Amino acid sequence: MKVKMADGVQDMRAVWFENGSLKLIDQRKLPLALEIVETADWRRATEMIRDMTVRGAPAIGITAAYAMALALRAGEDPQKAALHIKAARPTAYDLFYAVDRIADACASGEDVLCAADGYAEEIVEKCRAIGRYGAPLIADGMKVMTHCNAGALATGDWGTALAPMRVAHAEGRRFFVYVSETRPRLQGMQLTAWELLQEGIDHAIIPDSASARYLRDGVGLVITGADRIAANGDFANKIGTLDKAILARHFGVPFYVAAPISTFDPHAADGKAIPIECRAEEEMTCLGGQRLAPIGSRALNPAFDVTPGTLVTGFITESGIIPPDSLSRIMKRV
Amino acid sequence: MKVKMADGVQDMRAVWFENGSLKLIDQRKLPLALEIVETADWRRATEMIRDMTVRGAPAIGITAAYAMALALRAGEDPQKAALHIKAARPTAYDLFYAVDRIADACASGEDVLCAADGYAEEIVEKCRAIGRYGAPLIADGMKVMTHCNAGALATGDWGTALAPMRVAHAEGRRFFVYVSETRPRLQGMQLTAWELLQEGIDHAIIPDSASARYLRDGVGLVITGADRIAANGDFANKIGTLDKAILARHFGVPFYVAAPISTFDPHAADGKAIPIECRAEEEMTCLGGQRLAPIGSRALNPAFDVTPGTLVTGFITESGIIPPDSLSRIMKRV
Repeated sequence: MKVKMADGVQDMRAVWFENGSLKLIDQRKLPLALEIVETADWRRATEMIRDMTVRGAPAIGITAAYAMALALRAGEDPQKAALHIKAARPTAYDLFYAVDRIADACASGEDVLCAADGYAEEIVEKCRAIGRYGAPLIADGMKVMTHCNAGALATGDWGTALAPMRVAHAEGRRFFVYVSETRPRLQGMQLTAWELLQEGIDHAIIPDSASARYLRDGVGLVITGADRIAANGDFANKIGTLDKAILARHFGVPFYVAAPISTFDPHAADGKAIPIECRAEEEMTCLGGQRLAPIGSRALNPAFDVTPGTLVTGFITESGIIPPDSLSRIMKRV
Repeated sequence: MKVKMADGVQDMRAVWFENGSLKLIDQRKLPLALEIVETADWRRATEMIRDMTVRGAPAIGITAAYAMALALRAGEDPQKAALHIKAARPTAYDLFYAVDRIADACASGEDVLCAADGYAEEIVEKCRAIGRYGAPLIADGMKVMTHCNAGALATGDWGTALAPMRVAHAEGRRFFVYVSETRPRLQGMQLTAWELLQEGIDHAIIPDSASARYLRDGVGLVITGADRIAANGDFANKIGTLDKAILARHFGVPFYVAAPISTFDPHAADGKAIPIECRAEEEMTCLGGQRLAPIGSRALNPAFDVTPGTLVTGFITESGIIPPDSLSRIMKRV
């Protein structure tokens, strides 16, 4: 992804491995500061998943792959390390997939770091393909809406929901993106807007609750990411995705989900099988150490919701755009 | 309304007149501090409407009535004063109604302060009646959802959307309120939650974007206020109301609007005739002086949206609950 630095624009990834260490853009410091953190310790890498230094299912997967590789290189017991890393976040399927892949690579005698590098490269390549398949959906002059951050920060590079926008922008089309701010952690306002700004894509941040107002008034396309997609097309994504999917259907706006096939979980028959993480209420009631809510009022902070597959126009994957009624083809390949 | 003070619970209004001065709870300081501000200057009172020291259409109306009374007592030209006060906020119909009422009282030789007192008393009495009519909608054990603040703070006392909850609570029914936080100004989190806490009504704050998730899972009733209601039942209210109305319809949850009849504007044929205030983007991009958004990204901050009357189950007024298709009866009486 492009990153505007003091000495010009650099091309950078969100997560990479260099000189024996895992390096990450600290996503909690964006958009006001760009800080790179690094570690060679697999437990610290796991902690970075838990504390959301890195977030976004594919970027979590890449981080988990390197964490597992570091653990195995440190001589840790594969099963114990896998359990520990998998427990960092409960919803993202990529996390489990990545850990198992590195464990399998180790079992078959591969170099685990090469396996993790290969996994990261594969993810980024899949995202680029998602961009190529999704870009034709974005017409010149269109207004597009997205939620949370399903961009390069979330996937290493290119992103899922943002990949079609980057490709359409590179192809010279001009369009406008409504960026839903995504309370409580503001990943839309702080990460997606930051990425679009780096790429030079025209956009504005809106309150999450202005979704209906703008979907009514000319939005032509909604694209979100997904954290896990069940066999019937139900999918978990950032809280508020369900709202947008229902509202898009109400106003006749196409609603697409962009995700690599590794996000599809054939073991989850439907949305009810996807566990939903509830995060600390302080994420809602405090901001920057400042208490916002009355002392004594509690808050609910479900991090994700589950949207029925029936509300999805299509899943944009690295193998093309798949309508919800053709998902069984994909599920056999996962 | 009840207010928990250091020396016990007091009964207090949000706006009142005492010893020659207008007194207000500064709603921008809640929920962490309870500050009472006062002024005898009509221009300062108008400024308090503009800067949202007071907010909520009926409370704005009461403040405007006192501002107009103070202006007339100070010998200001009635037309100029009326124009100045009416320009403070563009959407709330009560503001215009209240100013005209005090001007009419003056023209017919009434004492303008008595007229303003009478207007405030009338509003509060209407809210109490809204509470009585709306309370039977709230069953024991029910989950209720509301948005923004349509409580005592917004109306002087009792509130509109919150009045049925106060009455049902006083009648001994136990229920649970989902309080949508209401970005960007957080009136739900900071004012509605504060009021419910004072009254001892069980509640939790939720992100605005968790509306669909909780409407799907057991909410039995949505009640919001309204800032202006057009002749066909379309109504303007806090941004996000349209989202909740569509989502409630999707999940088959009854959606009620609680508002005094003074909120009905027979001159607005439908929602398109209601002007919508767009507020400063800094309300979105900054919080407590802290920049949240990337420097260079802009934000859109429409303060209200317009919900079609067809999505409303009923309007809870001081004259009873009116279905949208019977609005013409009301409009004739405004």
